[in-house]
Amino acid sequence: MSTTQTNKIETIKASSTKINEVDFSNLSFGSVFTDHLFECDYKNGEWQKPVIKPYAPFLLDPSTRVFHYGQAIFEGMKAYKDENDDVWLFRPDENYKRFNTSAVRMAMPEVPEDIFMSGLNQLLQLDEAWIKKGKGNAMYIRPFMIATGTGVIANPSDNYKFMIILSPVSSYYSGEVKVLIAEHYSRAANGGIGAAKAAGNYAAQFYPTNLANKEGFQQVIWTDDATHTKLEEAGTMNVFFRINDTLLTAPVSERILDGVTRKTLIDLAKSIGIQVEVRSVLVSELVEAAKNGSLKEIFGAGTAAVVSVISGFSYQDVYYELPKIEFTMALQLKTKLENIQNKLEEDNFGWTVKI
Amino acid sequence: MSTTQTNKIETIKASSTKINEVDFSNLSFGSVFTDHLFECDYKNGEWQKPVIKPYAPFLLDPSTRVFHYGQAIFEGMKAYKDENDDVWLFRPDENYKRFNTSAVRMAMPEVPEDIFMSGLNQLLQLDEAWIKKGKGNAMYIRPFMIATGTGVIANPSDNYKFMIILSPVSSYYSGEVKVLIAEHYSRAANGGIGAAKAAGNYAAQFYPTNLANKEGFQQVIWTDDATHTKLEEAGTMNVFFRINDTLLTAPVSERILDGVTRKTLIDLAKSIGIQVEVRSVLVSELVEAAKNGSLKEIFGAGTAAVVSVISGFSYQDVYYELPKIEFTMALQLKTKLENIQNKLEEDNFGWTVKI
Ligand SMILES: Cc1ncc(COP(=O)(O)O)c(C=O)c1O
Ligand SMILES: Cc1ncc(COP(=O)(O)O)c(C=O)c1O
Repeated sequence: MSTTQTNKIETIKASSTKINEVDFSNLSFGSVFTDHLFECDYKNGEWQKPVIKPYAPFLLDPSTRVFHYGQAIFEGMKAYKDENDDVWLFRPDENYKRFNTSAVRMAMPEVPEDIFMSGLNQLLQLDEAWIKKGKGNAMYIRPFMIATGTGVIANPSDNYKFMIILSPVSSYYSGEVKVLIAEHYSRAANGGIGAAKAAGNYAAQFYPTNLANKEGFQQVIWTDDATHTKLEEAGTMNVFFRINDTLLTAPVSERILDGVTRKTLIDLAKSIGIQVEVRSVLVSELVEAAKNGSLKEIFGAGTAAVVSVISGFSYQDVYYELPKIEFTMALQLKTKLENIQNKLEEDNFGWTVKI
Repeated sequence: MSTTQTNKIETIKASSTKINEVDFSNLSFGSVFTDHLFECDYKNGEWQKPVIKPYAPFLLDPSTRVFHYGQAIFEGMKAYKDENDDVWLFRPDENYKRFNTSAVRMAMPEVPEDIFMSGLNQLLQLDEAWIKKGKGNAMYIRPFMIATGTGVIANPSDNYKFMIILSPVSSYYSGEVKVLIAEHYSRAANGGIGAAKAAGNYAAQFYPTNLANKEGFQQVIWTDDATHTKLEEAGTMNVFFRINDTLLTAPVSERILDGVTRKTLIDLAKSIGIQVEVRSVLVSELVEAAKNGSLKEIFGAGTAAVVSVISGFSYQDVYYELPKIEFTMALQLKTKLENIQNKLEEDNFGWTVKI
């Protein structure tokens, strides 16, 4: 992967910086944004001239398509600063490809690699002071695209806006995570948009997740909507199950997001001799393993939380607490991944890309 | 249903009207908007003071939740002007209730009846000159709500904006409608949001509908995502099948929108002695009926197109053309419905409400 560097993007600099107003030791995830953003509009069937400009609100007509028919996709990635002040991206080509896969499924135009990658690079360079060193610290990068055409008729939009915004984040501590296995609600349909990072997929999960929260569960693990017998993924994370010494995770499908962290952990696990099985995991199998003591760990994997340990799950009103283990695969894999991302350990996979 | 009239809503009038720029004999659906809109914001856990003001773009932060996590719902209804210049709504209580059903499913706050109904009434009164008389002419009303909170974290928003915008429309002529029966793609999951008028449901259909368009089909009739054996609904219409002299339509479910036109046509059909069966209709049954000649009509039912005649369907690469019938149930029901909506025929059902 080359981080294609083309001509310099037109850049309108902010007259002052907000960086001094930010308490970097106390960041709430995704709530603080840097001084600039990257923007490129699509109209008349083509991408217009991209621009980097001060982060600011923009005007939209009340009939803008994204409000009514939901064409909106995004990506989530991170940049890391190493001890030499170099800034690194982690597998940005994966996010770029997935963004366009989402675009196709949502009938939106694909973003050219050059626009995506140069935008990303030049924006990160400009707001580089906002990226802090140290494990856990990162710049969360949010590329997204919305339908900006107008008119209340249920057709694909003619105009779109692609933007990248940056949000500095620090270690994500979610507290204890207990999960509920979905028995009625679902996040995705066969032949639906579950594999796309489409805005509508997230809103669909809020209500059932709220219900789970009220019962004391932080997250829902979704199951297939037809039978609710197969374990799929969590709201913003793929899920791994350790039964004895084997790590299990569902294959990606049109209902499951092809997570970058998931595929990275699979490779990392294999590289350190952990046996990994990518196959459908049945709820019944999980319950059985919990009962007979062979279920050792469950953890979520995603860019935001990296690896998120799950302490127990509930299914059919029975709560299954996981054993407390000293040396977990979750911690082993998380440490290895963060070391590679932060350039503390050699990257033998070619995943890290310098900007 | 009472059209609750409360205190006058604060109204900021447009300094001039755009009405003279509009060619009312040549309206493209949903593309022209009146001079004013109704707006009410939700923040700090409550609905703020509503306002009617000039139709205009508004500012949103790039991290606004609706762009990223898709909390957005809408309604579609119409107002009609009769020969005495009185303006009538059609079953507005149904749209109001459905709006809040959608809100609950999308973890958004319900809109109080008073805000919804007074907003609707006072806005229509103010822009009343835009409503034209005559069958086919109507004011298309678009109430909608979007998440306006900021921050890129996949949680329900704290702030929301509820708006009503108005678009004058004339007779909807869609040309010949051939449909494709979905064999792979789907619009809704069991336990999903198919029954909500949520923005994300529409974007999800664009790509498969584009594929169908390319093969010469204007619309897709969706089937259940688990087996693709049961006929469900079209993109923005419920669907009726006439086999011999019986009208069949699928029961509403968590995958199917509870259409106002659908339930109205069921009642109208029954009132004129047509036998109606609300039950699952199998694709195999439809194909069989098409083959043996008992399939007489298929039509869609929805607020925008009212009743939309379908001339044939394709399934497993076989195209089934419907017979050309003189006196169709579709036309019979459409005429009756439009007569009631336009106050040309007595409304024995109490469906029409004067504003
Ligand atoms: C639904 C869903 N599943 C899984 C993931 C994890 O994907 P990644 O590891 O690429 O961040 C995400 C996103 O972050 C997601 O939104
Ligand atoms: C998915 C869907 N089905 C059916 C309908 C028909 O509903 P109604 O008759 O209330 O307009 C609509 C909307 O108009 C719709 O969006």
